[in-house]
This record gives sequence, structure tokens and C-alpha cells, in this order.
Amino acid sequence: MIEQILKNARCASRSLLRADRNAWLRAIESALRDATGAILAANAVDVTRAQALATAAPLLDRLTLNSTRWEAILASIDDVIALPDPLGRVLQERTHANGMRMRKLSVPFGVIGMIYESRPNVTVDAAVLGLKAGSAMVLRGSSSALSSNRAIVTALRLGIAQAGGDPNAVQLVDSDDRADVTAMLNARGEIDLLIPRGGAKLIAHVVENARVPVIETGTGVCHLYVHASADLEQALALLLNGKVQRPGVCNSLETLLVDQAIAPDFLPKAGDALTLAGVEIRADAEARKWLPNATPAQPADFGREFLDLIVAVRVVANLDQALAHIQAHSTQHSEVIAARDAVAIERFCTEVDAACVYANASSRFSDGFEFGLGAEIGISTQKMHARGPMGLAEIVTSKYVIDGSGQVR
Amino acid sequence: MIEQILKNARCASRSLLRADRNAWLRAIESALRDATGAILAANAVDVTRAQALATAAPLLDRLTLNSTRWEAILASIDDVIALPDPLGRVLQERTHANGMRMRKLSVPFGVIGMIYESRPNVTVDAAVLGLKAGSAMVLRGSSSALSSNRAIVTALRLGIAQAGGDPNAVQLVDSDDRADVTAMLNARGEIDLLIPRGGAKLIAHVVENARVPVIETGTGVCHLYVHASADLEQALALLLNGKVQRPGVCNSLETLLVDQAIAPDFLPKAGDALTLAGVEIRADAEARKWLPNATPAQPADFGREFLDLIVAVRVVANLDQALAHIQAHSTQHSEVIAARDAVAIERFCTEVDAACVYANASSRFSDGFEFGLGAEIGISTQKMHARGPMGLAEIVTSKYVIDGSGQVR
Repeated sequence: MIEQILKNARCASRSLLRADRNAWLRAIESALRDATGAILAANAVDVTRAQALATAAPLLDRLTLNSTRWEAILASIDDVIALPDPLGRVLQERTHANGMRMRKLSVPFGVIGMIYESRPNVTVDAAVLGLKAGSAMVLRGSSSALSSNRAIVTALRLGIAQAGGDPNAVQLVDSDDRADVTAMLNARGEIDLLIPRGGAKLIAHVVENARVPVIETGTGVCHLYVHASADLEQALALLLNGKVQRPGVCNSLETLLVDQAIAPDFLPKAGDALTLAGVEIRADAEARKWLPNATPAQPADFGREFLDLIVAVRVVANLDQALAHIQAHSTQHSEVIAARDAVAIERFCTEVDAACVYANASSRFSDGFEFGLGAEIGISTQKMHARGPMGLAEIVTSKYVIDGSGQVR
Repeated sequence: MIEQILKNARCASRSLLRADRNAWLRAIESALRDATGAILAANAVDVTRAQALATAAPLLDRLTLNSTRWEAILASIDDVIALPDPLGRVLQERTHANGMRMRKLSVPFGVIGMIYESRPNVTVDAAVLGLKAGSAMVLRGSSSALSSNRAIVTALRLGIAQAGGDPNAVQLVDSDDRADVTAMLNARGEIDLLIPRGGAKLIAHVVENARVPVIETGTGVCHLYVHASADLEQALALLLNGKVQRPGVCNSLETLLVDQAIAPDFLPKAGDALTLAGVEIRADAEARKWLPNATPAQPADFGREFLDLIVAVRVVANLDQALAHIQAHSTQHSEVIAARDAVAIERFCTEVDAACVYANASSRFSDGFEFGLGAEIGISTQKMHARGPMGLAEIVTSKYVIDGSGQVR
């Protein structure tokens, strides 16, 4: 089955080269709106099954669609339609001494695969962004969302067909057979780009086993380092925002590093505020001097993505020790320094090797919308092709087109 | 041993963040010049051993250094010194509505690995370009060039040390143990980018087995399609230049596709010219009507990288059949159309999925210097990160640096 899906996708990707992609998106939005009842009913089936399996509350929440969420998903399609076309842009242009015109143009990848977990909104997001970027999409969601995804993709394909397009531009790998994932990971020449989205285990599995080009997304062990020169009120606000506002996401804080010199001033205030916000504190021996409510941190608590109201705390001797700690434990997602000292800020921003480095601002801003990308298909934690929040410009590639009049070497 | 090399490389990569990299390159050039005698003597050892092993002439040629070649290699270091710094460029800049300044800056990858075959000049090129791009280089050349590479890397490291740098910024994996290659392929988090350079077998091995990010380079099955509207003299020049000028390189032509309508006019001339140039012609039945000297093409001759004075020839019914043939057999390196018809040119340039698409110009121009990059570390045939000739801009990554004053979400 997967072989046929990939053949269909390649064929559809060629039709996308000349399609009015925004017309497709408008038709998709209309078809999804018409199918609202069927999609919410299908989602209810998934939710009921998940409840019967005693699924944890956060996961259940991510799986659940309701009218409000659905309306927001539909509205986001308008936003994507309004974005500038990422294709056909002249990225570079020059004339060779021999007269050839050489242009580097933005062009589609071709076929993009997505392997993702329970959120059904990813199915819409990925399809809409992928089509806007001119690529055919092969979607492999989780079995827990299979009913929802079937209903959504049926409507998506109906919309494409109504716009006169090839519905195979969006296909669902409609099974929970793990062999399909393996086939996607090995589909060299058939999948031009594979983007995994989900938990650390899923991402690791894809990265470890893929033979096709992959953009690694998501895992975020983000640190806040409070330098001796920090404005303590600001530092406290960054800590609370980073840890408490939405602890289950990748750009939330997991570890607090505090300069020895400022620990007696900062940690008692931080401890009170965190405890008040319901955060469990796991601290090293030095930090516990100022954090009576903290439990002792285990070595594994540093570098751990809690995704929960838990924070690891360590007192460091100085900037160098903070940098060494971050280098050892960071997932290169988002790292923050709170400081007023310009030299410390400059060193932190230069030496920390991460997609996003913040001086006196919250890690929670690592997000495609906050970065002005107008949309987000994930946050890359790798250094190749895309780094940090990925929008449309990150899911297209380029091609050199050279116009000559018989030039030879 | 490889574990220590990778640790040393990471450490050296941090020192590169503040190094005067051009000063290093000047010292390297001077050290290499001083070591000329030792390097040429070491190369003679490799060449003598290769001769004793009855190495094929083209390989022997690639392995051999002489004074003229060595002077050219040294001179190329001046060219790299003169190139603009690829680091610290502001790729994007905006101010968030909340006042944060958000910049996307070009930064080094960190540690770049190269796995390559016999040419000792690659050792110098890779080290010099990698250092200019701010990354520590881990070089694994072939065992056939081990003496040359040892002598070159010794001088490179001496130069770095003389400039006050950490010599571990360039390290040779000084063994012919295949386990070292395997270790490099699996060095996640230690090698930030791996670039294989060499024959199709080496590239395939790396791509199939790597867990670290790889840029695939080099294999070129390039086609020339002569459309019915072509200027036949121009088409003939493109054919000869592409096939004959330097048949052993990846941007040379391997296959000629000729429109049915023009085959009786073009093929006899092409056949005579190719035969005169010593090219063996392997043609399909239709083409052989006009090519009395041709041997019958086997199916495997299409899509084959001969890298030799051999060309596969096929007559196609029209543009669509040419596009389908190229899609089936191209390695997405460089593809050429000879045509005067604007619609045919536009369709070819849009629909052919390759790094470089030429209208009426030779595929031989696919080269970093011809593309104005000032240097070349390889030609990417993949779509992620870099596509086509790669210069300094293609071996750096980016990082977002956000300057705030306490902003939270």
C-alpha cells in the first residue's frame, strides 16, 4: 500500500508545479467546514476509545477537538492563504562573464512525509502548509487519532478535487502498521523530506532509523541562567513564565542555573514563587541551602525534559560553569540568560550552541508566530537546512536555473 | 582513538568562535609552503605504492601531487582568505511588537567531518574552507593517500599552532580502519555535519548508514535533451563540451536524448563528431538508424555514470518523454535542454527536478567557481540545506539571537 501511496504522491507533486495552490486551500477550508459534523463525530470515537484505554489527561486533551478548537483550525487556513507564496522567489541572481543568466529559485521539495502523534490539528496544519509550499504530503498520524484523521483527510481530498486538483496531493497512511513507518523511513528518492513531530521517543526512532532526509524537531531541555548581574525581578518573571505558563511544550524551561554570588538573594524568592505556582523543585545541595521546600536533585534530573510542573535547580560558580552545564545538557532548542552585564550577555549569546538564544526574554517566544513566520510546522533542533521555528521558507528547497545561448567551457 | 579526536574537535570548535581565522589560514599557507619537500616526498611514497598495486591511471593521476599542482593548491588558500567572512552575517532582523530585537545570524556548524577518496588536495581544501567557516574539521581520507595526508595535516596543524590556535581544529583520522568510518557515521551530537566526497559507492555507503546529518554530493548522471526547435550547431557544441572536455567528473554528460523530429538531422552529425573525439556510442534501436557506428544500448546504460568517453543515446517522441526519461534516470545533479522554443524551455526548467537546470548552456558549468562562490567543497545532489555547488555559505548554519528587556508571554 505504501508503495502506491508514494507513487501517487510523486505524480501529484508534479501537478502541484502549476496549481493555483491558494484556490486549493480555499476549497479545502470550505470542504473541512462542510464536514465539521462528521469530523467532530469521528473525533468523539477516538476520544471515547482513548478514555476506555485510561489515556492520561494531557494526551486526551491533545487528542480532543471541539467546536472552538475546530473553528480556530479553520481560521488558521485563512492565515496561510494570506501568506506570501514561498515558491518562485529569486534567491540569488547573477550574470556570468560569458553572458549566462544564473538564478537560484525557491522550488518545492516534491514529496514531504510527516510522522506525528495524537493531535488531529497537525493533520490540517501539515497538509495546508505543505500544499502552500508546493509539495505532496504523506501523513502518518497515530493510531489513537485514526478516526479523526480519516475524516479530516477525506474532507481535505474532497476539497482538492473540487478545486480541480489531484487529491493524492494529500494522503493518509491509513493503518497502524509499524511496517509503514519503516517503509517511509527507507523511501529514498520517494520522500524528499521527512518531518517527525511528537515525543522524544518518536523523534529519536525516526532520526536513528531514517535513510531519507529528516528535520529533527521538538525536544527542548531549555535552561534559564541567572547571572550575578541580573535584574532579579525580571529573572523571576522569566522563570515563572518559562516554567509555569505552559509546562507541556518544548519551549518551556526545565532547568534553572543560578550564579553563586546571587543565589542567597534570588533563590528564596524563586522558591516561594515556584512553590506557590505548584512547581516541584529538585535542587542540588548548594541550592537547597536557600530552598527549604526542594527535594534533592538526581543527576538524571539535569538534561531531563519534564514537560510538567517540575524544575531542576543548580547553583553554578560563574558563567563558564553555566556554559559548560548547558553544553552538556542542552538539546540546542532555546536557552536564556538573565543579566545586565554586557560582556556576560555577549559571551552567552555567542558561545551557547542552540537554535534560539535569549538575553532577558522568555524561552516561550520560540514559536513560528512569535518569530513572524506566519505559521509553524515544527521547531528544528538540528543545524542542517532549518534551525529554530520552521515556517513556509523552511519547507521549500532551491534550484539553479541557467539561461544561456550556447555557452561551453 | 576516534572518541578522543571528536572530543578534541569539539573543544577546538569553541576556540574558533573568537579566532582570527584568516590569520590561521595565512599561517597554514606558510607552513604548507615550508613543508613542500616533505609533502611531495610523502606523496611519492603513496604514488609508488599505488603503482605497485597496479592502480588504474585516472586514480593514480588523482593521487599525484607535483610542484605545479602544489603551487595551485597553495594559491587557492589566498583566494579563500580573500573571500568575505561567512560568519556573523545578519540573515534576518526584526523587532517584535513587544520590543525584543530578533536576529538570525550565520554561525559555525561546530564540527564537520569529511570522508573522501584519494585526492590529497581535498585535505587542504576541506581544512581551509572548514576553518574559514569556523568549524573544526575531522578528516578521513583514503588509505591510498595516507602518507600524503599525514604530511599535509602535520603542516596544517603546525600552521594553526604558529598562529596561536588549537591545532585540533584540524585532525586526521590516521588509520585505514573501517571501524573509524562507522564511528564517524554514528557520532550524533559530536559531528554536526558530515560531507562524503568520492565515488558513488562511498557516497551511498555514507548516506545509507549515517546517523549524523549528511550532505550527499557528487554522483552525476547528466542528460542533454535536444528539442526539435534546437539550434543544431549549439546543441552539438553542448554535447561535445559536456561529454569530451573532462569525462571523469560529475558534471559531464552521460546521456543524449534527441527529439524524433530532429534525429535525422542531428544524429549523423553528432555521431561523426563523437566518434572523431573517441567516444563510444551506445544507442537505442531508433537512434541507431542514424548512428552506424553505435553499439546497441542495454537498459542499464541509461542512468549510468560512465565517467568515461562513453555516451548513451535515445530518441524520444517529444518533451514529455524526455522529461519522463530524465525523471526516471537523473541523479538530480545537472540537466540540459537545447531548444529555441520558449515554452519547451520553460517547461524543462520548471519540471526537471535537479540542482542545476540549463537552457542552452553546458552542464560543465556546475562548479562553485563558475557559480561565483569563490570556492567549492562539493556539489550537493540533495534538497536539504544545500543544493548544487557548495561554497562557504553552505557550510555554516544559523542561530536566532533575541535581545529583550524582560519580555514574557
